[in-house]
Amino acid sequence: MWIDLFVDGGTRSTSASLFTQIRDAIADGRLTAGDRLPPSRTLAAELGVARSTVAAVYARLVAEGFLDGRAGNGTFVTAGPEPSSGAPGHASRPATHSNATFVSPMPTEHDAPPVLVDLSTGRPDPRLFPVVDWRRCVTAAAAGVPPGYGDPAGLPELRRTIASWVSRSRGVIATSAHVLVTSGAQQAFDLVASTFLARGAVVAIEDPGYPQARRAFERHGARLAPVPVDHDGMVVDAIPRDADAVYVTPSHQSPTGVTMSGARRRALLARAAELDLLVIEDDYDTEFRYVDRPLEPLQRLDRSGRVVYVGTFSKTLSPSLRLGFVVTDAARIDRLCATRSVVDAQPPHITQAALAELIARGGFDRHLRRGRRRYQPRHALVARLLQSLHDDGLVPVPWRSNAGLHSMLELAPGTDAELVVERLRRRGVVVQSTGDWSIEADLPALLIGFALAEPAHLELALTAIRDELSLLRG
Amino acid sequence: MWIDLFVDGGTRSTSASLFTQIRDAIADGRLTAGDRLPPSRTLAAELGVARSTVAAVYARLVAEGFLDGRAGNGTFVTAGPEPSSGAPGHASRPATHSNATFVSPMPTEHDAPPVLVDLSTGRPDPRLFPVVDWRRCVTAAAAGVPPGYGDPAGLPELRRTIASWVSRSRGVIATSAHVLVTSGAQQAFDLVASTFLARGAVVAIEDPGYPQARRAFERHGARLAPVPVDHDGMVVDAIPRDADAVYVTPSHQSPTGVTMSGARRRALLARAAELDLLVIEDDYDTEFRYVDRPLEPLQRLDRSGRVVYVGTFSKTLSPSLRLGFVVTDAARIDRLCATRSVVDAQPPHITQAALAELIARGGFDRHLRRGRRRYQPRHALVARLLQSLHDDGLVPVPWRSNAGLHSMLELAPGTDAELVVERLRRRGVVVQSTGDWSIEADLPALLIGFALAEPAHLELALTAIRDELSLLRG
Repeated sequence: MWIDLFVDGGTRSTSASLFTQIRDAIADGRLTAGDRLPPSRTLAAELGVARSTVAAVYARLVAEGFLDGRAGNGTFVTAGPEPSSGAPGHASRPATHSNATFVSPMPTEHDAPPVLVDLSTGRPDPRLFPVVDWRRCVTAAAAGVPPGYGDPAGLPELRRTIASWVSRSRGVIATSAHVLVTSGAQQAFDLVASTFLARGAVVAIEDPGYPQARRAFERHGARLAPVPVDHDGMVVDAIPRDADAVYVTPSHQSPTGVTMSGARRRALLARAAELDLLVIEDDYDTEFRYVDRPLEPLQRLDRSGRVVYVGTFSKTLSPSLRLGFVVTDAARIDRLCATRSVVDAQPPHITQAALAELIARGGFDRHLRRGRRRYQPRHALVARLLQSLHDDGLVPVPWRSNAGLHSMLELAPGTDAELVVERLRRRGVVVQSTGDWSIEADLPALLIGFALAEPAHLELALTAIRDELSLLRG
Repeated sequence: MWIDLFVDGGTRSTSASLFTQIRDAIADGRLTAGDRLPPSRTLAAELGVARSTVAAVYARLVAEGFLDGRAGNGTFVTAGPEPSSGAPGHASRPATHSNATFVSPMPTEHDAPPVLVDLSTGRPDPRLFPVVDWRRCVTAAAAGVPPGYGDPAGLPELRRTIASWVSRSRGVIATSAHVLVTSGAQQAFDLVASTFLARGAVVAIEDPGYPQARRAFERHGARLAPVPVDHDGMVVDAIPRDADAVYVTPSHQSPTGVTMSGARRRALLARAAELDLLVIEDDYDTEFRYVDRPLEPLQRLDRSGRVVYVGTFSKTLSPSLRLGFVVTDAARIDRLCATRSVVDAQPPHITQAALAELIARGGFDRHLRRGRRRYQPRHALVARLLQSLHDDGLVPVPWRSNAGLHSMLELAPGTDAELVVERLRRRGVVVQSTGDWSIEADLPALLIGFALAEPAHLELALTAIRDELSLLRG
């Protein structure tokens, strides 16, 4: 079949309708030069119309130059305009999105040199991805007929596997009944906001803090109460009394990288109890830990059941798997499922089944060990280089980061971070500022992601940064 | 490593903290009877604490019966409670969800007999799923390193493939710039509602009509204006003047199955122009057509750019792929992308890449042809049996359905459809009533899904239905 044609149920004559449909198909690019049309007899039979009708339509299209009818050879499309995005009602689409957080910062200026070192955050080192293990798991998951609509909480074997893995590796208290599989952490924020926050609810949030979480809360009508961050994490005494919930990244604060101290964690839970807050604990990238042992998560320290713990596989495996999870009590999981069934049912079967297999066979643990070995020297190198910038009086005291895929470089007060980003870009170094992370906080800083760059390249990039900061000061 | 332990950053002594953590791990089921603990020397070194501290903790756990320490043999977990969902703050989870639409209706009553015939709607015949083709496409898609966060509009090759396929097979006017790939049609409704409907917007909706679409609109604060449906589709003159949008299933009305006539389509677009409505056209299952040629979709008839067309692969391939799409103008696609980047980024790479491959290689068209051959006799049989129920005076005039995976059986006015469902269930026949589809409509009816049942089984089920209806009348 070439294109579907329709016998118009309306007032237009069949021949006028067929003429328009074929002409439009050529204009739209669905039929292109050289395409052969079915014989008029065949098409007429298929449409249940007289052959003479089709023949007349073909003749008119030939007369108008759309078709070429060579006796005995069939009828062919001559030439139509190229497929166009300018069909009626269809404005042409801008080439790029404004969504800077999710799109790798590939600049569009014509004079920007090629990227030499990419310090972006947001995805792990692609060279680490366990291609062979993953393909084996995916092929196994595709061996049978996929199921129908599944449990909106996620595939049972993946929920079990995640429960056992977060219990073992993070000390999170969970059985499978406490796990909801999500399409990445981002969907977790959306579902949590939509399910547990009334419109107008006040959410205390780290400032600077993760912008995409903030946007998910705002989308559901929450009001944000920015709370400062110091070297022990969120300053919990500053959580306002009218707050209804608090969003926090205690394991590796986004963007500063600090770990919330044990004392601060307990203070946060005390404040949460006092104000009856829902606590949203985002533990987004501490599978990769380099120094110290982790502190107990809020989810574990909490004895009043007010914590919703969010994790993701985007930073360990790949954002393109779209898998994350929520751990919270079973009653909340049920309420999240009710929301989820209205927004997108559940994640695909194949990614869930493959991940469950990867974790269960030990492939995920092996991958994390390889990752730690790969990232640890980069993390240490970045820490050393940031310290030396401070020792030379170029920047304030570094923020200590023990884990994850980035550290933060705070710049001297008053520095124009965007200008630094722009100047580094001209030297081939791609780096993000923390501008999008700030609500009221005045903290010029750069995010030094080390997932995509080798140590030698990190040194090169940090040398360029040192240079630019010296120039700016001089 | 067995479980991660934490050196508490707080005021508790290290030994008290370790004692609690190991005891909790046993209580939670993370450590189970027979698990061997690391030698105290090893654990002490790993945690950076004195060996005597660990030895004392082990001794206390042995004394309290949690561990068994046999000199020279190591230290073992004795026996703990079974893993429990009753951890602090974790209420146990009900076994079933209230989400009747997505969960196959497997009844929980103890006296219900086994299911003999399943007339449920909502998934295609699993025996038709192209397992071999799909696995080949999935394996190919998993051959390399997956990308990072992608375009929130979806994978470019899938957008192109969908554009070309809907143009060719449906007459929808589209290039890839007009396509947004979604996580099923459900996410399309959620994104469209969230992006284009202000809170309090009035959405005219078929009554009876698809309940999950209604819920997506309500979730974003829309007010619903129920509009009756007759044998030509939605009664468009009844769309109220204060409406802001209209949601409609013209190709195969859900649940009645009627196709909106050509005249009614033009009247709908005229009404939409008059009231400046956004038109949401849901074309959820007409890839399988059995009689007549399809009429032109609203998206094609419309020349004012007010249609948002929604499609899905849930009814053709499997709901568990979680793939659907929106076709609309490029400016709207951009706005949908902005919403989408906050709710879940984009669908997984692997399902998108595999589907693009399946369509491009012709596997999808082959699958649809096989499906049509399989379903056509079932569709014809159901039509014949429904007509005979009418001929015998048991039910009103049947609603004509030309496509899709279900037909609707309207019952005599005043019939208690739920009672019929319940009585059929006791005979081993699973069937849904349209109760959830009705807002104000008083239309007792059953959905006769024929995707999961062979012709012989369909006959058996329809005989049972005939029997029950005769009994009820008698």
